[in-house]
Amino acid sequence: MILRRPYMVEIVVMKAVSEGNQAHADKVRAALDSNGVVALNFVSSPGAGKTTLLERTIRDNPDLKIAVIEGDIFTARDAARIEAAGAPSIQLNTEGACHLTANMIEAVLPKLDLKNLHFVMIENIGNLICPAGFPLGEHKRVTLLSTPEGSDKVRKYPLAFNTADVILITKTDIRDAVGFDISMVLKDLSGVNPKVEPWPLSVVSGEGLERWYKWLRGLKKK
Amino acid sequence: MILRRPYMVEIVVMKAVSEGNQAHADKVRAALDSNGVVALNFVSSPGAGKTTLLERTIRDNPDLKIAVIEGDIFTARDAARIEAAGAPSIQLNTEGACHLTANMIEAVLPKLDLKNLHFVMIENIGNLICPAGFPLGEHKRVTLLSTPEGSDKVRKYPLAFNTADVILITKTDIRDAVGFDISMVLKDLSGVNPKVEPWPLSVVSGEGLERWYKWLRGLKKK
Repeated sequence: MILRRPYMVEIVVMKAVSEGNQAHADKVRAALDSNGVVALNFVSSPGAGKTTLLERTIRDNPDLKIAVIEGDIFTARDAARIEAAGAPSIQLNTEGACHLTANMIEAVLPKLDLKNLHFVMIENIGNLICPAGFPLGEHKRVTLLSTPEGSDKVRKYPLAFNTADVILITKTDIRDAVGFDISMVLKDLSGVNPKVEPWPLSVVSGEGLERWYKWLRGLKKK
Repeated sequence: MILRRPYMVEIVVMKAVSEGNQAHADKVRAALDSNGVVALNFVSSPGAGKTTLLERTIRDNPDLKIAVIEGDIFTARDAARIEAAGAPSIQLNTEGACHLTANMIEAVLPKLDLKNLHFVMIENIGNLICPAGFPLGEHKRVTLLSTPEGSDKVRKYPLAFNTADVILITKTDIRDAVGFDISMVLKDLSGVNPKVEPWPLSVVSGEGLERWYKWLRGLKKK
């Protein structure tokens, strides 16, 4: 009995090119827009829950046509998880570079069936510093902060938060166990990114998933 | 009533200089060795518990003379925590750079009273990628992986783990709540850094602290 379709993960190893990033980002955006596809760029520390959120989003919304571009330094672990969740995925390996660049997205975008997609989710390298300065052509940037990372991270890593369109406070199911203090995050955000209110979210308790899905659906263009 | 001594935190803003890093690291090491001081370089993701471990180590070992060089992009939050724990601290701000470089350590080392120190603890920028390639003159490198980051991080960020002399698995008090699987870490480490066995540690439950302190004391040179 085949429990799920067989799958292979395509791994593309690419060099990060920082120069002229905006021009590549513009080309990515144009290709997305001409196909009515919305792209999100997910930024966080390692282990904040980017892949887990994407897996859950894919499983809970089978009518949304989602593809994922997975950024990592090495390994295809995350792309394999996404494929197992039921969505096409391409693994980008930077072999050491601490962020994706738009030339990488431009290079792999033709591998995706854009005409038949609603969303391209780009999971950046796990890092709160480097990815912030490199737009990838995305329409929205989503920054995750997990409660066990601590309440003091917004001011310590302001670039990841002041460029975010949505900030998700993940792993709220263990907020009490790790002593997470949302008031410090709110205070810091009032200086760093006052327009964005952080949304609590947990794939374990389900907190915040409906709001997240509703926001996603509001972005859909076709 | 003064509950603790007044303190100020010195913040030094410096540019990371990658070129010639090893020469600067050699000078740092020579200055440390001529004073019988041992330096450790702490590497991890944001929020894995570097500062908390240092605070606890300082408080639990008042006979060890420890100074801390705190690396951060912005803010002096960590240096303030260390000073409050009772040890002298210098805050290095990189203003964007994702790792410390040895020229920074060389520049601030004269601010420390090396003759009267056993240890200089260097807390690197919270990042599992960039710091790995830049030795700072340290004698030992300590990499932390916190259980909520997930069991799959060793192969995903191998550089931070294969350059480590000690690997601490932190926040083990919540290992069950976050579903941490040490067997995956051990399997990955057998390929990435087979000489180092990870040590479980929690400043909440106290697990592993005695082993950590014993190891530290074994490094002491005077």
